[in-house]
Amino acid sequence: MEIGDLKKTIDLKKAAQEMYELMYKLYPICRSITGDGFRETLRIIQDYIPLTMHEIPTGTRVFDWTVPEEWNIKDAYVKNSKGERVIDFKESNLHVVGYSVPVHTRMPLSELKKHLHTLPGHPDWIPYRTSYYKENWGFCLSHNKFLELQEDTYEVYIDSTLKEGYLTYGEYFIKGRVSEEVLLSCHACHPSLCNDNVSGIVLTSLLGRYLSSLSLRYSYRILFIPGTVGSITWLSLNEAGVSKIKHGLVVTCVGDPGISTYKRSRIGKAEIDVAVEHVLKHSGDSYKVVDFSPYGYDERQYCSPGFNLPVGCLQRTPHGEYPEYHTSADNCDFVKPEYLADSFFKYLSVLNILENNKTYLNTNPKCEPQLGKRGLYTSTGGQSHAVVDQMALLWALNFSDGQHTLLDIAEKSGVRFDEIYEASCALLRTGLLEEQSL
Amino acid sequence: MEIGDLKKTIDLKKAAQEMYELMYKLYPICRSITGDGFRETLRIIQDYIPLTMHEIPTGTRVFDWTVPEEWNIKDAYVKNSKGERVIDFKESNLHVVGYSVPVHTRMPLSELKKHLHTLPGHPDWIPYRTSYYKENWGFCLSHNKFLELQEDTYEVYIDSTLKEGYLTYGEYFIKGRVSEEVLLSCHACHPSLCNDNVSGIVLTSLLGRYLSSLSLRYSYRILFIPGTVGSITWLSLNEAGVSKIKHGLVVTCVGDPGISTYKRSRIGKAEIDVAVEHVLKHSGDSYKVVDFSPYGYDERQYCSPGFNLPVGCLQRTPHGEYPEYHTSADNCDFVKPEYLADSFFKYLSVLNILENNKTYLNTNPKCEPQLGKRGLYTSTGGQSHAVVDQMALLWALNFSDGQHTLLDIAEKSGVRFDEIYEASCALLRTGLLEEQSL
Amino acid sequence: MEIGDLKKTIDLKKAAQEMYELMYKLYPICRSITGDGFRETLRIIQDYIPLTMHEIPTGTRVFDWTVPEEWNIKDAYVKNSKGERVIDFKESNLHVVGYSVPVHTRMPLSELKKHLHTLPGHPDWIPYRTSYYKENWGFCLSHNKFLELQEDTYEVYIDSTLKEGYLTYGEYFIKGRVSEEVLLSCHACHPSLCNDNVSGIVLTSLLGRYLSSLSLRYSYRILFIPGTVGSITWLSLNEAGVSKIKHGLVVTCVGDPGISTYKRSRIGKAEIDVAVEHVLKHSGDSYKVVDFSPYGYDERQYCSPGFNLPVGCLQRTPHGEYPEYHTSADNCDFVKPEYLADSFFKYLSVLNILENNKTYLNTNPKCEPQLGKRGLYTSTGGQSHAVVDQMALLWALNFSDGQHTLLDIAEKSGVRFDEIYEASCALLRTGLLEEQSL
Repeated sequence: MEIGDLKKTIDLKKAAQEMYELMYKLYPICRSITGDGFRETLRIIQDYIPLTMHEIPTGTRVFDWTVPEEWNIKDAYVKNSKGERVIDFKESNLHVVGYSVPVHTRMPLSELKKHLHTLPGHPDWIPYRTSYYKENWGFCLSHNKFLELQEDTYEVYIDSTLKEGYLTYGEYFIKGRVSEEVLLSCHACHPSLCNDNVSGIVLTSLLGRYLSSLSLRYSYRILFIPGTVGSITWLSLNEAGVSKIKHGLVVTCVGDPGISTYKRSRIGKAEIDVAVEHVLKHSGDSYKVVDFSPYGYDERQYCSPGFNLPVGCLQRTPHGEYPEYHTSADNCDFVKPEYLADSFFKYLSVLNILENNKTYLNTNPKCEPQLGKRGLYTSTGGQSHAVVDQMALLWALNFSDGQHTLLDIAEKSGVRFDEIYEASCALLRTGLLEEQSL
Repeated sequence: MEIGDLKKTIDLKKAAQEMYELMYKLYPICRSITGDGFRETLRIIQDYIPLTMHEIPTGTRVFDWTVPEEWNIKDAYVKNSKGERVIDFKESNLHVVGYSVPVHTRMPLSELKKHLHTLPGHPDWIPYRTSYYKENWGFCLSHNKFLELQEDTYEVYIDSTLKEGYLTYGEYFIKGRVSEEVLLSCHACHPSLCNDNVSGIVLTSLLGRYLSSLSLRYSYRILFIPGTVGSITWLSLNEAGVSKIKHGLVVTCVGDPGISTYKRSRIGKAEIDVAVEHVLKHSGDSYKVVDFSPYGYDERQYCSPGFNLPVGCLQRTPHGEYPEYHTSADNCDFVKPEYLADSFFKYLSVLNILENNKTYLNTNPKCEPQLGKRGLYTSTGGQSHAVVDQMALLWALNFSDGQHTLLDIAEKSGVRFDEIYEASCALLRTGLLEEQSL
Repeated sequence: MEIGDLKKTIDLKKAAQEMYELMYKLYPICRSITGDGFRETLRIIQDYIPLTMHEIPTGTRVFDWTVPEEWNIKDAYVKNSKGERVIDFKESNLHVVGYSVPVHTRMPLSELKKHLHTLPGHPDWIPYRTSYYKENWGFCLSHNKFLELQEDTYEVYIDSTLKEGYLTYGEYFIKGRVSEEVLLSCHACHPSLCNDNVSGIVLTSLLGRYLSSLSLRYSYRILFIPGTVGSITWLSLNEAGVSKIKHGLVVTCVGDPGISTYKRSRIGKAEIDVAVEHVLKHSGDSYKVVDFSPYGYDERQYCSPGFNLPVGCLQRTPHGEYPEYHTSADNCDFVKPEYLADSFFKYLSVLNILENNKTYLNTNPKCEPQLGKRGLYTSTGGQSHAVVDQMALLWALNFSDGQHTLLDIAEKSGVRFDEIYEASCALLRTGLLEEQSL
């Protein structure tokens, strides 16, 4: 079965519903770059795809980095002298700075304030803060709550552990007809932040489940990893196989109301770049394409100069460009099923192109072949390929010279890839195209 | 004699008049892709240029195609029961669908209607229809006439023959100083349609006559062929010599009131493409340039991937983009002598560039030569080359480095080719340029 | 010491003042392409930089040219019959056509008029005229004065000499760490014309003095030459060493109120072109960039096809584009110290880029290095390199792949060269970049 066929029959509403349900399951979990929240997330994803869980020990050298200690947390609060929890981890896992070391002590407000983080510009929102590589502790809270804090002696309690353990990641490999791979990578290290990146996790999970039901040309490698240190770890442990990755996308921020944004790979004109831009251009929706820059998510690592993989990032509003980013306002209300479905469809459209984008040879390259005698000229024949667009046939014939892929021809002609692809199928059936032997 | 000199002395009014006269002679003839109308057309052109007529037998295999049976027609009509010719081939040869098989029968209106073609959107115009590769018959008529048809039994008569014969084409070869060729190709297979392509036939005929009077650098090959099957036939029979074609133009739709339109060769940046665009850019008129697409006239065949010849199409309004296209309204009123003359001048200007576009070497490449001591600096010397533009001299000197043709230099400088060419002549005379030895 | 450091500490006001003072010294001198005025100019410049004076004998063959006779002038006037000097060289050296041969005679007004040049469109201004390569004499005067001339017999006197002598030019070579050279060339052959090119002379002199105080990477070659014949002479005599010139600028018209204009080298994308455009783009000022054309100042010779050196021209308003050009209105009021200072700073900024533009290799190309553990991540460290911009670090790391210079990275990122350079310094200190071994 071809992805192309599936695309027509896919029930996007159902996919949206399923993504939304999974999102509600994953949102409350307190994830970090290591720890049980990450493992629990992977276990839930395993209901959708048969993910392999990898555990990499603390202290493992991964290129210039070292796998950090594992962090877990059970509870945390700040109590006033009346014993009331004025800040309570159980209300929101954003209240505790990620990777906070354990602490249990009392201090006056003046001392406590040095460990508090707020967003004065959005006084109702709790910010998200971490301190992975510098031992520290802290609380985040809304600025309004902060202003209500009275002079008092506060009990500060963080019931966390930071010790030897593991960095966990999930990997799902789907074997295709060829060993060349498409990489889909999404970071799963954030606590209750919905667009960044529960949205990416649920889209990737459902996409993986769909792919697993298909007969695929490419092999697919799907990663659920902690951001930065996770992709560095994976690349370090899998360096030998990295050259198999022919195309890749980092999946993040795919559920917000913004327009689609594609950040090109460092290569800039790789097939994945052309494919995504083709999909967006023909989507009928507004979109934005930006050049690679060495800041963002794990494309930073995949596109580091020593790898320079053809990996882009297809998202909606990029990180940092929406005010809800890394705050408690990035919640389940901010992400909508229709945006998830739209992103899902665009990802599927891109993969459809990759699966079907080949280079053919016109077997009759001198002058045009006579299409009429092959039933390709009129639309009255009633055969399935009779609906093939005439112009698409002519474009596919003229540029199948061994130098142009179907996607190149689609771009050159302005015709949608699907139509060029259908034309190529009809031409293959009638022997007017043949696969290029390598 | 150089085309450049002729261009100055050419009497465009006279050329326009001669083209217009030839147009009136050719317009009434019932041409098709084979048959006596095509032969008669070539015979009339022979009064202008010594055309060779080629006859290719029905059934000849030409690449993927086969030369079709020859079609001829003497008369055709539809008579009502009163014996009145309600549709009459003698009034307009467009009334009969091209390649209609012979028929003589009676039928009710309801049956007849299945064989009638009209243009409801232009109710006074007769459409032009053919059925070359599927045996069929039919009549075309104005929609208003169609609406007047009463319930009746009609006598249908087409006195045509469709049988073994020949495909005819005309070829005129002018030998130049080099064996490399310029191809001028025009389809001559349409009945009474004036812009498409009596206009192309008359322009090509007069152009051929002018070229024959000149001392030419390039050899010129001029073809009058039936569209599609004609160029396929010619390419098939002349495949061995095709590599000599260095530049080419398909001549069509050159007499309508629209602006000039140039459709680039498949190569896109061939010398012919740059030359035509240079002429149009400096013409002072509006114009349009479009990329190659595998639809149109015989450039489709010349630019098929197995040949990929540098052949573009210089026309006015492209086929299908004016409402009169392929209707009885494409008549002698639609084409005007001033548009023919303008097209003629533009074709001549393009050929002038091709003839004179060479790559020279500055013999004094280190620093500027002293122009003053060679009489090239001031305009007071009174010599003929003293009128040469100073800037054109400096451009021609600086970029005659063996990497730039005169046309490249004209494009780079924004100076018209003529001025750069005149500068190069003055520099050649004074020894400051020399021809590049190959 | 790095130019980069100097730039921060440079006292632009003082530089402007010094340039203005030198300008007032040089402006009154009657210079031409040869002669004592040129020598006196060089002698004054020697107070600033240890210029070598070269004397090339009349008759020396320099490529297609010959060093002309030396011209000197002591006095010149036109007296009316009352003995009044109605045109007086002592009032303005522009009054005499440059290279006028000696004359002493009487003539009526009608005869005199054949030797007079005025600017009717600017009736108060004296034009500047020369006749280097055709023996002649003449006077220039304001059109208003011309109109006052009465019928009379005039005594015409030009006390000039035109005889065997020398073409003089000044050269200053600063040895840098590498033998590759930066060329700064300015024509010094104009009499009392301030923007063209006393402004260029004073900027180049001060720039040379500054450069001589620095530890430089490149060697610098600074030329004060007569226009056209001077650069031709220098190129002819120094042809063997010309390949050492890696970058160059022609310095002219740098003191007028217009915006900066950069005329690209013939190469068009040479490092000097990118560097100047980078400086102008990030200057915050309006500016214009134009492609090379074979007309202008000595870049015509440096960019002749036999040399094709990477030499551009960084000026303000180009020659011929301001009405004061080559008239008595191009005086010390037209040039302002603030424009000289602005040009000076832009030249210095360009040289700063050239000095520091290198290609480095990321020593840790697989994934990002951990900046935090090297004190490069936070800005709280208090060390000097802690102020290095985070994005500049990431850009410098990602694109230091041996294919991109720092300037390439600055252009790609949109970040100013200075910031990329500072980032590269911090990365070199921590071993994350290394110089590319050639």
